[in-house]
Amino acid sequence: MKLKNKRILCLVHEAFEDLEFWYPYYRLQEEGAILTVAGEKGGEVYHGKYGVPVTSEIAYGEADPNQFDALLVPGGWAPDKIRRFAEVRELVRTMNQRGAVLGQICHAGWVFISAGILRGRKVTSTPAIRDDMTNAGAIWVDEPVVIDGNLVSSRRPSDLPLYARALIDLLL
Amino acid sequence: MKLKNKRILCLVHEAFEDLEFWYPYYRLQEEGAILTVAGEKGGEVYHGKYGVPVTSEIAYGEADPNQFDALLVPGGWAPDKIRRFAEVRELVRTMNQRGAVLGQICHAGWVFISAGILRGRKVTSTPAIRDDMTNAGAIWVDEPVVIDGNLVSSRRPSDLPLYARALIDLLL
Repeated sequence: MKLKNKRILCLVHEAFEDLEFWYPYYRLQEEGAILTVAGEKGGEVYHGKYGVPVTSEIAYGEADPNQFDALLVPGGWAPDKIRRFAEVRELVRTMNQRGAVLGQICHAGWVFISAGILRGRKVTSTPAIRDDMTNAGAIWVDEPVVIDGNLVSSRRPSDLPLYARALIDLLL
Repeated sequence: MKLKNKRILCLVHEAFEDLEFWYPYYRLQEEGAILTVAGEKGGEVYHGKYGVPVTSEIAYGEADPNQFDALLVPGGWAPDKIRRFAEVRELVRTMNQRGAVLGQICHAGWVFISAGILRGRKVTSTPAIRDDMTNAGAIWVDEPVVIDGNLVSSRRPSDLPLYARALIDLLL
């Protein structure tokens, strides 16, 4: 229970990548972390791109950025939705300023682009959004997991074992 | 990398429970284990009940029971298919006699019923197959994870963090 009492905020919306949400969720829970799922609305069911469901506990705007040790954004096409919310962009900026751990995998980088926190930072993502990442000023590399300060990034589901391990190590 | 060089055999067929296959798969890989996926045929794509795909590497009959430290069976409705293969039932019996770790979650118990190895053993499963488990002579309890010798069992996806941790501990 290495992460006992650590608080993790997980953002979701429709068409998240099923494993990219659920693997880190269960993995950090295994270490004793307390996870909170936030969606556009609280108490709403969102479906992964394959259909695995998850129910949000709170709305994005109800999350207090000072109460969480980490923020996780899954890939899939959910980030195309999640980035549209001003309260999400503000949440990301505030947590980044606090040095909270920020985890992005696959298409999650879109959310961090719109929050404006990627300039000069070393990241990876699905190659599909590589151009968006570099146009936002990020230094993009093709590696299974990249750690730049408080920012952890991975490319795809098969990177999940290394991604989760990096999140855990950084949270310790 | 606590499980470096440990070899794990994962059985699949159509309509496996997506997270019950993929969470243990990535989790044991995270610890350095080498995982092999076996299906009715090798090189065939099987889909989870939500649609997450996995490609088998070998056919059930090609798995050498003496080469693996553990055997994992996911839930969903795949176990209703998997139990029908004589080579699977033989594999389970041989690995059980060797004391290899056997993991079953949700409906996976059906496979172990048909292999005839549950009499007198303490297990859990989805409550849906409780009657089948007790009729096969198992001692059924409603707990997130149950360990009886080399046999580890859990009930459902939300038990995955405890299930994976128990598998890892037993493999050490």
